[in-house]
Amino acid sequence: MNIGLLGFGVVGRGVYDILAGRDDIRVRTVLCRRDLGALTCAATRDMQDILDDPGIDTVVEVMGGLEPAYAYVSAALAAGKHVVTSNKQLLCRYYKELTALAKANGVTLRGTAAVGGGIPWLTNLEKAARVNRISSVGGILNGTTNFIMDAMHKGDVEFGDVLRRAQELGYAEADPSADIDGWDIQRKLIISASVAFGVCLREEDVPVFGIRSVSAADIRRFRQRGYTCKLIARAERLEDSVAAYVEPTLLAAGALESAVPANFNLVSMEGEYMGRQSFYGQGAGRYPTAYNVVQDLMDIAGGKAGFYTDSFAPCETNNAGALHRYYVRTTAACPELDAAAQEDWDGAVVTLPVSVAHMHALLPRLLEADPESFIAAVQGGGRDAEGC
Amino acid sequence: MNIGLLGFGVVGRGVYDILAGRDDIRVRTVLCRRDLGALTCAATRDMQDILDDPGIDTVVEVMGGLEPAYAYVSAALAAGKHVVTSNKQLLCRYYKELTALAKANGVTLRGTAAVGGGIPWLTNLEKAARVNRISSVGGILNGTTNFIMDAMHKGDVEFGDVLRRAQELGYAEADPSADIDGWDIQRKLIISASVAFGVCLREEDVPVFGIRSVSAADIRRFRQRGYTCKLIARAERLEDSVAAYVEPTLLAAGALESAVPANFNLVSMEGEYMGRQSFYGQGAGRYPTAYNVVQDLMDIAGGKAGFYTDSFAPCETNNAGALHRYYVRTTAACPELDAAAQEDWDGAVVTLPVSVAHMHALLPRLLEADPESFIAAVQGGGRDAEGC
Repeated sequence: MNIGLLGFGVVGRGVYDILAGRDDIRVRTVLCRRDLGALTCAATRDMQDILDDPGIDTVVEVMGGLEPAYAYVSAALAAGKHVVTSNKQLLCRYYKELTALAKANGVTLRGTAAVGGGIPWLTNLEKAARVNRISSVGGILNGTTNFIMDAMHKGDVEFGDVLRRAQELGYAEADPSADIDGWDIQRKLIISASVAFGVCLREEDVPVFGIRSVSAADIRRFRQRGYTCKLIARAERLEDSVAAYVEPTLLAAGALESAVPANFNLVSMEGEYMGRQSFYGQGAGRYPTAYNVVQDLMDIAGGKAGFYTDSFAPCETNNAGALHRYYVRTTAACPELDAAAQEDWDGAVVTLPVSVAHMHALLPRLLEADPESFIAAVQGGGRDAEGC
Repeated sequence: MNIGLLGFGVVGRGVYDILAGRDDIRVRTVLCRRDLGALTCAATRDMQDILDDPGIDTVVEVMGGLEPAYAYVSAALAAGKHVVTSNKQLLCRYYKELTALAKANGVTLRGTAAVGGGIPWLTNLEKAARVNRISSVGGILNGTTNFIMDAMHKGDVEFGDVLRRAQELGYAEADPSADIDGWDIQRKLIISASVAFGVCLREEDVPVFGIRSVSAADIRRFRQRGYTCKLIARAERLEDSVAAYVEPTLLAAGALESAVPANFNLVSMEGEYMGRQSFYGQGAGRYPTAYNVVQDLMDIAGGKAGFYTDSFAPCETNNAGALHRYYVRTTAACPELDAAAQEDWDGAVVTLPVSVAHMHALLPRLLEADPESFIAAVQGGGRDAEGC
């Protein structure tokens, strides 16, 4: 197998390093705008060189972003080359187009590293779905936000200070919005739901609330009551639709998710025969992510064909039936919330069960009146239920 | 694919049920000594019927035990039929012989359900080992003992009472020794190490200490100090040997293993590129176990060949370099332990770091003088290190 490698950043370099020791899969040409110095393969700045090279059978796209990644990947598929990508934004936005193009050209498209970094999540989800009906997927799918929440639970520190530390350590981007506002985890959820349920969800239909406004005082309230707060993505198969959303969630201290440290991920599925299964590991980073790119390459070399699932039916998102109690801390006046308030948590309220759809519909109003408002779904029973 | 199904107990019935809905894999004949009533396939009490049927290409062995399972599986492989088994005892004792036989006859042998029940552990381990060097494997690999330890941590109850409850719920056998004395988890560890490292370990070389003698007073001491006790298996790759052992282990309250509830399993591996990965799910039970049997069948139908690894080098077990602090509660006189004692835990001691080899060599003497002696390795820092 001979590779055209698009991009030579963190992940691209990792793929190059791992493949350096192998005879069965070789990098033949790297596409990169920068001067890369001495490599054991060719380098080019022109995608056409890779498309025109009949010796390259497979293209690895690790550039990120929508353009020119989409144009390059489309051209590679159209040229009859297999594609492996780690680009979640690309797969989430264009998977219908890309899988159709792969199918039409009889080549394979894989993107295991796009969701869960080094965790073999999509490959296991694909295998699970062939034997049993998957009823839900989700979990902790973003290492940056888990690092921040973990640090805020371990020390009495404010969000901004932890974010700066995460940026210094390379766990957060200079522009952290995609991570802390939940867009990264939303895309991973949409890709997971499409593989698990064989459906198409639209990004604009999956509501998201991130962790930008969480405060040390919020965390103190959670800890006092035996809860751990994590940014959780969840999708659930309903009769003719899918419930899907991303929101901070309070978990009992004994829950598996509560024990996920630093920048690790934990992603779960439930199936009719296998019950709940969870997968834990590094959700990002050079070598874990490159590791899953190489696993995809080996799967293709071993004859794996197509995409993770054969067909995608367009599908409505419906969060009207998903009911949670919510922690709400806001100075905004909101009669609907006052009517639903059930517990007073010293400066915040916890509501009676309300639907995810309703809560996320109220959010713009809360944030307009108080941009620092923070909410979190309450799951499990906290200290009492765990008997701590 | 047409199946000869050996055994129609808990798992056999589960396999039959799951396959009932499929066209691609059909059960053609069931071998069972009991009268099975109405089935949608043939039934026989004579293995020869299955061996002689050219329409049966694959044999599923879910009888358990060494004989006649070993004779039947050997005969099936020799007759050119693929074999899928959930029998850890068989795979652990005879995998060299069985894999050689499968190789000689050009057929495939798989046993994913033998380790971790419904968790796709061996298949993921196999995939991980093809891309990166695995340095360690292990974890919570027995649901019965985890159920007991979990219940003892959640309530102030004695071992015998919880064991009886586990037996009533069907989580423990009438003869619970294989589970509570650690032999079941030892076999799963040996199979895991052989797949991860490509080595042969002998059962008699892997020391085991179970949970039969743990008391409510022990658990109170652990909880007071912020520890959770679990029965843990671990194997580590060394230069020319492997460290491998099974023993109760005290984990910090925030460790992922500490959050594993009821009869769930959590099994982990570490690799050079991917870092640590863990897999969580149902380690036993009709449908989870049968689910992994069916996954193996689909892998074979999809062209998966051979066993999980190509070759097994005989390998020494060496636990002299694995150093742990140990919790020791015994009335036996033991000058070596007195010399190593570092902390007094109100009726028990915690030692300075001593080798696993040394501790397990002392155990027979402790147990002879005090059959109720209990030990546990101390991992992590308990309450202080976790900042609880």
